[in-house]
Amino acid sequence: MAARPVGLPQESDFALDEVELDSPKVGEALVRILWASVDPYQRGRMSEARSYAKSLEIGDVITAANLGEVMESNDPRFNPGDLVVGQLGWQEYATARAGTLRGVPPVLEPPTLALHAVGLTGFTAYFGLFDIGKPRPGDTVVVSAAAGAVGQIAGQLAKLAGCRTVGIAGGPEKARDLTELYGYDAAIDHKSDDVAEALRGERVDVYFDNVGGEISQAVQRRLNLGARIVICGQVSQYNAQRPEPTFHPGLLVVFRARMEGFLIFDYAHRYDEAALKLAHWVANGDIHWREDVTEGLENAPRAFIGMLNGENQGKALVKVAERES
Amino acid sequence: MAARPVGLPQESDFALDEVELDSPKVGEALVRILWASVDPYQRGRMSEARSYAKSLEIGDVITAANLGEVMESNDPRFNPGDLVVGQLGWQEYATARAGTLRGVPPVLEPPTLALHAVGLTGFTAYFGLFDIGKPRPGDTVVVSAAAGAVGQIAGQLAKLAGCRTVGIAGGPEKARDLTELYGYDAAIDHKSDDVAEALRGERVDVYFDNVGGEISQAVQRRLNLGARIVICGQVSQYNAQRPEPTFHPGLLVVFRARMEGFLIFDYAHRYDEAALKLAHWVANGDIHWREDVTEGLENAPRAFIGMLNGENQGKALVKVAERES
Repeated sequence: MAARPVGLPQESDFALDEVELDSPKVGEALVRILWASVDPYQRGRMSEARSYAKSLEIGDVITAANLGEVMESNDPRFNPGDLVVGQLGWQEYATARAGTLRGVPPVLEPPTLALHAVGLTGFTAYFGLFDIGKPRPGDTVVVSAAAGAVGQIAGQLAKLAGCRTVGIAGGPEKARDLTELYGYDAAIDHKSDDVAEALRGERVDVYFDNVGGEISQAVQRRLNLGARIVICGQVSQYNAQRPEPTFHPGLLVVFRARMEGFLIFDYAHRYDEAALKLAHWVANGDIHWREDVTEGLENAPRAFIGMLNGENQGKALVKVAERES
Repeated sequence: MAARPVGLPQESDFALDEVELDSPKVGEALVRILWASVDPYQRGRMSEARSYAKSLEIGDVITAANLGEVMESNDPRFNPGDLVVGQLGWQEYATARAGTLRGVPPVLEPPTLALHAVGLTGFTAYFGLFDIGKPRPGDTVVVSAAAGAVGQIAGQLAKLAGCRTVGIAGGPEKARDLTELYGYDAAIDHKSDDVAEALRGERVDVYFDNVGGEISQAVQRRLNLGARIVICGQVSQYNAQRPEPTFHPGLLVVFRARMEGFLIFDYAHRYDEAALKLAHWVANGDIHWREDVTEGLENAPRAFIGMLNGENQGKALVKVAERES
């Protein structure tokens, strides 16, 4: 991070830098990074505002989830050539404590699934929907940013749980993906549709919210009694210097509703549960996914800015290097 | 209701009217009203805005909880002379279906307890705190409008549950009641104290919110991880023509927190549970209470407007008539 972004980040807020590489100490592994993930939460780390994690300082490597291969291991859990995921950052190599890495099973094909449908964004959809949203068969589940990395999985999980699913996304290509690729029962393109009008007649039991702001205000007009609003993200607010309040708590009395936030890192002890189920559903063809790949670490900032603008179609990933082994 | 209030209600929005009295039909009872309750939710009924209950129309009797004595009964459940509570309205007499009335046990002394600590406002504190707030021993529970009818009970219930309790009220008399009468561990007078400053160092596990607005925004800066915000009321917003949003849902992610609304009428099947426990605690001296009595039905509007302005100290009640039997 070369400068702290103000509003929408600019490419000049980032810089490529060369630093000396440490050899892995006992209990560590040296990882060559193949893929870097691009996710909205990274914007929060670049801000000084108080949040759930420490802010990045100027000069810090951008926090990111990565897929890489082990080059050297000083821990019995990993051998050279192993594919691993971990929070290594936007860089080409990283030494990491072995306990912070997860092995990628060789059967996972493509292995980049470990960065989305069978990785953190899939886990986010899984725990957010099931643990917080608690859908029941017959419920109507509305997902915002429904074609995004989390949203695409959340909608399909709700469908597997016997729910009616309505996805909201921006632009006709994403809206088409919602029904044709991700199996949503209905799609709303918030760039061309009036969201509240499009939801007329729906009774929303679960609202899986990734965006906040005006889209959420429209959805909240259509809540059912006892609705659950899952606050996964509020990407519409991430670039605001001073985000304005967007919600009136009295609405929760009217609908006897619950709004709850969660953070995927609190579920680390249950990642295996989610990974097993998600891998099974992906292998069965019950869960579909799309990747939006940008080539070259130097283009990560552009991919990130594009994602914050909603330009990606599918999970935003940066390909950093080809696998060697 | 003579006119639909705009903003803070005025006495001219109300009128006394004489109408013919119906005799009770089969399954009904005629009740002479002794006491009328004055509660913030009544403001919502006077508004046309969509809410959980139908709006009042011009000429309708103001909705209210009442204590009265049965004059004539056409139902085996009640006899003349029985004390009952029910939603009868601001009037001197009412015929009501017997199933909508609850008998007041003769041991309840004074019987007006059935309109507050052992009535709807007590039940509201009981279910809101225990079912929605889910306090654990050692938790810090903050209550807004803590000297009000619901707040005074919520704080004492939290204390019984082994929590540290902090009450927020307006003015030195109410603040004194908080610690001296209702047993709060700490009191904040929001008219003279900076609420966020006063809460510095607190980690709020449960926020039982009756008011919303700026006071809530201050409390929310001091949430603990996993906090529960119980939305009982938002009285600071009730007179607003177009209430502005006051809450940023992203806060729920930062604190992995839950915000949930509830409506006491949904708990009607469990009123007996709450009444038994509350009556026991009141009889034991574990729960203290204060009434703020206005004499005469004609003064109910004034009492109501005063309550919306926070002028009452204790549960606002209107004494309509003396008991005859």
